[in-house]
Amino acid sequence: MSRTECGSSDMWSPEKIAALLAEDVPYGDLTTDLLGIGSAPARMVFRLRQAGVVAGVEAAAQLIRAAGGAAELQSATGARVEAGTVLLRAEGPAGALHRGWKVSQTLVEYLSGIATATAALVEAARAVSPHIAVVTTRKTFPGVKAAMIEAIKAGGALPHRLGLSETVLVFPEHRAFLPDTLAALARLKREAPEKRVVVEVDTLEGVEAILPAAPDILQCEKMAPEGIAEVVALVRAAGIAVKVAAAGGVNAGNAAAYAAAGADILVTSAPYWAKPADVKVVLEPA
Amino acid sequence: MSRTECGSSDMWSPEKIAALLAEDVPYGDLTTDLLGIGSAPARMVFRLRQAGVVAGVEAAAQLIRAAGGAAELQSATGARVEAGTVLLRAEGPAGALHRGWKVSQTLVEYLSGIATATAALVEAARAVSPHIAVVTTRKTFPGVKAAMIEAIKAGGALPHRLGLSETVLVFPEHRAFLPDTLAALARLKREAPEKRVVVEVDTLEGVEAILPAAPDILQCEKMAPEGIAEVVALVRAAGIAVKVAAAGGVNAGNAAAYAAAGADILVTSAPYWAKPADVKVVLEPA
Amino acid sequence: MSRTECGSSDMWSPEKIAALLAEDVPYGDLTTDLLGIGSAPARMVFRLRQAGVVAGVEAAAQLIRAAGGAAELQSATGARVEAGTVLLRAEGPAGALHRGWKVSQTLVEYLSGIATATAALVEAARAVSPHIAVVTTRKTFPGVKAAMIEAIKAGGALPHRLGLSETVLVFPEHRAFLPDTLAALARLKREAPEKRVVVEVDTLEGVEAILPAAPDILQCEKMAPEGIAEVVALVRAAGIAVKVAAAGGVNAGNAAAYAAAGADILVTSAPYWAKPADVKVVLEPA
Amino acid sequence: MSRTECGSSDMWSPEKIAALLAEDVPYGDLTTDLLGIGSAPARMVFRLRQAGVVAGVEAAAQLIRAAGGAAELQSATGARVEAGTVLLRAEGPAGALHRGWKVSQTLVEYLSGIATATAALVEAARAVSPHIAVVTTRKTFPGVKAAMIEAIKAGGALPHRLGLSETVLVFPEHRAFLPDTLAALARLKREAPEKRVVVEVDTLEGVEAILPAAPDILQCEKMAPEGIAEVVALVRAAGIAVKVAAAGGVNAGNAAAYAAAGADILVTSAPYWAKPADVKVVLEPA
Amino acid sequence: MSRTECGSSDMWSPEKIAALLAEDVPYGDLTTDLLGIGSAPARMVFRLRQAGVVAGVEAAAQLIRAAGGAAELQSATGARVEAGTVLLRAEGPAGALHRGWKVSQTLVEYLSGIATATAALVEAARAVSPHIAVVTTRKTFPGVKAAMIEAIKAGGALPHRLGLSETVLVFPEHRAFLPDTLAALARLKREAPEKRVVVEVDTLEGVEAILPAAPDILQCEKMAPEGIAEVVALVRAAGIAVKVAAAGGVNAGNAAAYAAAGADILVTSAPYWAKPADVKVVLEPA
Amino acid sequence: MSRTECGSSDMWSPEKIAALLAEDVPYGDLTTDLLGIGSAPARMVFRLRQAGVVAGVEAAAQLIRAAGGAAELQSATGARVEAGTVLLRAEGPAGALHRGWKVSQTLVEYLSGIATATAALVEAARAVSPHIAVVTTRKTFPGVKAAMIEAIKAGGALPHRLGLSETVLVFPEHRAFLPDTLAALARLKREAPEKRVVVEVDTLEGVEAILPAAPDILQCEKMAPEGIAEVVALVRAAGIAVKVAAAGGVNAGNAAAYAAAGADILVTSAPYWAKPADVKVVLEPA
Repeated sequence: MSRTECGSSDMWSPEKIAALLAEDVPYGDLTTDLLGIGSAPARMVFRLRQAGVVAGVEAAAQLIRAAGGAAELQSATGARVEAGTVLLRAEGPAGALHRGWKVSQTLVEYLSGIATATAALVEAARAVSPHIAVVTTRKTFPGVKAAMIEAIKAGGALPHRLGLSETVLVFPEHRAFLPDTLAALARLKREAPEKRVVVEVDTLEGVEAILPAAPDILQCEKMAPEGIAEVVALVRAAGIAVKVAAAGGVNAGNAAAYAAAGADILVTSAPYWAKPADVKVVLEPA
Repeated sequence: MSRTECGSSDMWSPEKIAALLAEDVPYGDLTTDLLGIGSAPARMVFRLRQAGVVAGVEAAAQLIRAAGGAAELQSATGARVEAGTVLLRAEGPAGALHRGWKVSQTLVEYLSGIATATAALVEAARAVSPHIAVVTTRKTFPGVKAAMIEAIKAGGALPHRLGLSETVLVFPEHRAFLPDTLAALARLKREAPEKRVVVEVDTLEGVEAILPAAPDILQCEKMAPEGIAEVVALVRAAGIAVKVAAAGGVNAGNAAAYAAAGADILVTSAPYWAKPADVKVVLEPA
Repeated sequence: MSRTECGSSDMWSPEKIAALLAEDVPYGDLTTDLLGIGSAPARMVFRLRQAGVVAGVEAAAQLIRAAGGAAELQSATGARVEAGTVLLRAEGPAGALHRGWKVSQTLVEYLSGIATATAALVEAARAVSPHIAVVTTRKTFPGVKAAMIEAIKAGGALPHRLGLSETVLVFPEHRAFLPDTLAALARLKREAPEKRVVVEVDTLEGVEAILPAAPDILQCEKMAPEGIAEVVALVRAAGIAVKVAAAGGVNAGNAAAYAAAGADILVTSAPYWAKPADVKVVLEPA
Repeated sequence: MSRTECGSSDMWSPEKIAALLAEDVPYGDLTTDLLGIGSAPARMVFRLRQAGVVAGVEAAAQLIRAAGGAAELQSATGARVEAGTVLLRAEGPAGALHRGWKVSQTLVEYLSGIATATAALVEAARAVSPHIAVVTTRKTFPGVKAAMIEAIKAGGALPHRLGLSETVLVFPEHRAFLPDTLAALARLKREAPEKRVVVEVDTLEGVEAILPAAPDILQCEKMAPEGIAEVVALVRAAGIAVKVAAAGGVNAGNAAAYAAAGADILVTSAPYWAKPADVKVVLEPA
Repeated sequence: MSRTECGSSDMWSPEKIAALLAEDVPYGDLTTDLLGIGSAPARMVFRLRQAGVVAGVEAAAQLIRAAGGAAELQSATGARVEAGTVLLRAEGPAGALHRGWKVSQTLVEYLSGIATATAALVEAARAVSPHIAVVTTRKTFPGVKAAMIEAIKAGGALPHRLGLSETVLVFPEHRAFLPDTLAALARLKREAPEKRVVVEVDTLEGVEAILPAAPDILQCEKMAPEGIAEVVALVRAAGIAVKVAAAGGVNAGNAAAYAAAGADILVTSAPYWAKPADVKVVLEPA
Repeated sequence: MSRTECGSSDMWSPEKIAALLAEDVPYGDLTTDLLGIGSAPARMVFRLRQAGVVAGVEAAAQLIRAAGGAAELQSATGARVEAGTVLLRAEGPAGALHRGWKVSQTLVEYLSGIATATAALVEAARAVSPHIAVVTTRKTFPGVKAAMIEAIKAGGALPHRLGLSETVLVFPEHRAFLPDTLAALARLKREAPEKRVVVEVDTLEGVEAILPAAPDILQCEKMAPEGIAEVVALVRAAGIAVKVAAAGGVNAGNAAAYAAAGADILVTSAPYWAKPADVKVVLEPA
């Protein structure tokens, strides 16, 4: 999958676009109205100040159009661009561009910030282990999962799980309720043949206890890279097809170490709260 | 206003609570269902791992109740608490607690992270200038403004402006469309007597050009603390009642310097992307 | 701000337009369907029967388009027009025009009625006091604030406050809870430097008690014009920059008297329940 | 049907209640928060200042509860009450009551105003013609049909038609597309046996042309009471079971005249824009 | 009314279309994204495998457009078509067509299945009794009434009642609360002159008890065709204008028998759970 | 997982419940209001007429409560019950029970019909192959996926895929765009280690072509049981861990044959359009 492809054609619903606009401009733009400049012809350009991975520009263009302006994309979600790259151009009445300006800029800034941080983490890991998978947790900011998932996909990651309904991930907090974990895991594998069975562990003892169940994936929570290396060794010694995922505290700074330790999968939340990218906007008379 | 008060009694709408839950659990909890543990009695405790300012616990309790559990608050939005403080306790069927767990935890983590970062910025500024106002911009993550505003209020700030409809803030991007800025500002002050007139400037020359209009507030964008000090001096020399706001790049690290420079108001976005607080959750058989 | 400008470019969200249409036509148009005339080519014209201020025509055009017709605006929100002026023209299948007819007509009638009544009040006041501000209360019909605010802006007023979240208005019902009102007002002014502090009073004694706090605005509730004149005199005697607002029972009939009494601001709800304007619709075969 | 019954048990959806509250208080109550009085115990009483018909009090109680207060109804939608009657009592934290105050008061005022005006019209007509039916048009303010319909039912009317989907009302604007109106009406009566067939006419000639089709109801648009009397005579002379409805300009002032003219049904929009009832609210420390 | 007309011009709201798409593709199309084929040019054709009545194709086209493709209708809701008929053609990026494929296909399948089953029932009845009315109950699948009603109208039926708010249907479950049914029915006829009064009965004794009230329609619940014939005879003997409706268990298999028994109206739910039509989709590189 | 567990504790959102109620009763219950019986005390009992699997009763109880009644569950989603079993009891004002009656009954009827049909299919298959998995497609009626998925889970099945975002299912319609299918599948398995890779085939040749890619699951579309047996043999001969799923036309009548043929998984849509269960409701004075 080329990065420029994913997300770029997923249009946001008119309802969501209208809601974002209304969140910022519920009853018109007081300043612009009072100044009486709303109908003056204007143009607007968005540029990314630093190099990074773009996200959210299609939705930004939809926002500007919903505000009454015309917008032309100059980049696409998933593109890696240099500092100063023009992301989009818009034109229309000053009132329309002022209405659409900040919410579209802010959206591109947050999403491109997440995409850029994701890409940094992916690259750090793949420099060591070219085929390692990087996936992000379900700990998105409540209410904006779709936007954040679009951004991490733009950065080259995939979602680890979208929620509780489509994946099987057995936490210690599940096992505490089970009289016989191995039997339960066996039954679970049989009943949900279409799902990978992922089991979270946080100690080597835990790994040893679970390995006989041959889960598809062992998700190691808050273990240091050295611990991961030991898990990988244990799994290899057991000679079964179990993938090892490192989770809990994984970030761009330690991704290479986890990759070097032999993890097959990195599970991370860190990109979600990345600092927004810096988008320079010029809005001026046309 | 004591910090524990604001926000603590604002209930989130049942619709919003249901939407957050559905975002994480749209079609039931596959793992818990398959393991057959959903009806086992369980209990859950949330603790904040580090000291900080609490936010979002009331909504977390609403989420747990909507998921079918009982929840009892042990803290409140706006409270400053020590590391290890219990924030809430819940009990109910394991299925209910598993459904409500992560989304409520994640919400408390993001909001308390924002509240804590806000409080740090406020304190840094007030250590120097006890009555300085700290306000946050409208650059909230699109779609979750209400939650983020609740969090910064918990941390002791107020919103700078909620959007375009209720405040008058004249950007250079407005003035570019005006033949006579001073005349326009005079008219604007007359037509909107109920609003403070805020004018954004980014140079001393800009300040000098605007001062004759006697705006209520001069918002100085991306000026260093030294620049702010010069603006303050200019304003005092002019002998008019204009407040000086510093905006653009203000954060916990430089808030004291801006306060020392004489700013009356700090305008910041930095707390919005604070790292989430770390909430430890214990979910176990009751 | 010219009246024709405000509101005219604020598009209503597709969701809101669809909801209004569904409110009137939830499951198709039974009569037109049964008569079998839905696909006949048709045209429709809206005319304002009396002179007045137009509002809602853009949304009306959106409604007609959402119903499947083509619509062309002949006027704009905020325009003052003569009796008989054509507001919009539409064409399309008879079924589409019948679906869109009444709800779009009704919307224009209610909103133009409000705009026209607002303009009458504004003119009555400004004939006496050319720079007086006219603002409308938050007592809009619950659920349709955005539409009503658009209409009063079309008529030349501004909203007094959009709700509880963005303005500071201290009622006697707040002060009943305060041990020391003046101290509370002083603190409030310091903590919210970006807001005007408005204090509601309803007697001269109340004015005298509050004046030392130097609020930005004294809002005088249900005081006769003579009372307002006395308040204005008191304020002038005090020599402080306090604006006087008259509220409670202000309408087109007494606006001039309040203006003559020296009020700086008139606060009114009366235009909200104005009789709808009378829009004549011709719908006929094309 | 006793008037106190209808509507009184129809609860408004939590979503609608939350939306009304959020319309007025989207991000908390700034004044109350800044004054720090939100947690003080308080009580609130609503009284109707003039005699009238009550509407909306159940929804008002729901609003107060959703805002965090306790509310106890002292009256019910549909009740006719004397001046000064207590409608509801509430208690709770001052912050909760301040949040819920105005929107619940405003709702009761608008709906009771409509209910009272409806009752006046109904009584005027029934004083002359005890069994006349009074129905209101579909020209409700777009977006709030459910609330307005609840109010006119409280006042003793019924909705004429809820929209286009459930009634058959043939306008001249339909007939303009029909080659043979009588044949079309005959077919329509056969195809929709479950619906009354209503035909709008505006002249005596129109009545004569339509009578052979024996519609269930002739709706006479903008005809004076004298004209209605002539229509009634024509219908009686024809000896067929056709009811006569007067529509267009019917209001409390002319309802008796229309009733005296022999109309079976009065169709009116006038109550929708009635002046809101005056509800006195006392909110004070408990 | 020709069948091709009804429904074909009722556009679905953008919000509903977006919701249906999001139900199937909430966070992008994982398979297509991972395969990297999203931007390849593609085309898609829908064909109905068996003869039948078409429904839902307009909404299907809207879905495909909302997914990013271009769609051209080749048929229309209400059309009776032969096996193999092309219903619509689409083209666009493979990603767009894959996103829109299944949900649009599924919609056409369910709705055309309902329309086809409705038409079969209507034809069976009309072969015997050419002017019999066929109406469908309000027992639509909760949440999708609008879609199901559109489909039965496409098949030549009308809705019996859209819900509880617009029709008068007196069940035995109402009469159990009435001290004097005949008096109540008389009052009801007077108070709601615009409505047909329908009374449900399930025995001949019930018919005899109700006939003196002269309801507009007697709805006979779960009576065999022979019973219906007896009711018809009773009504004719009474010499009053009462129509007889057969309800409860009416389906395509017995519709002719009910028609032959003299019923004026057939009330049925059976088409709602018809087997979906079989739509063959070809999606291939363009 | 015991059948009574899944779903029984998943509460429906207040918003969804309100929407279902409003779909049936948008503006009050006309008949009950006109008869004036709304406040009479009443009780209501739901019984399943035939033996079957229960679904939707919790939501039915929520509907009745939202309509103003009290409801007590006597059964639970997932329970297998005998003919005549009481599912729930309710009491309250007659108006409340009449409002809630049909929509709650209809919901239980549709969902229990689906659950019962699902259980029949599951049992037929498991009588032959005790551990076979039965999963249902994503071809739910558009707009009501959550309800239908709850029902098939109640009947003992699981969803095959909830939509396009969380599963990897490679159709021939994907492969038509791929130059090298095997290479693409290899890449896909590497990039999405957390997902099973499912490949749809419809001929033995197709199976042979895909087997070298070792997908996790071969989904055989519209192949007869004999064909499935051949696929199973091919897979076993290849000695790789590939599960075989039968899809396309699988129903209760042929499930045993597919199971006997060796399928590991049955994929079906048939239960979605099952005839609704028959729920007898008694509503009477209390």
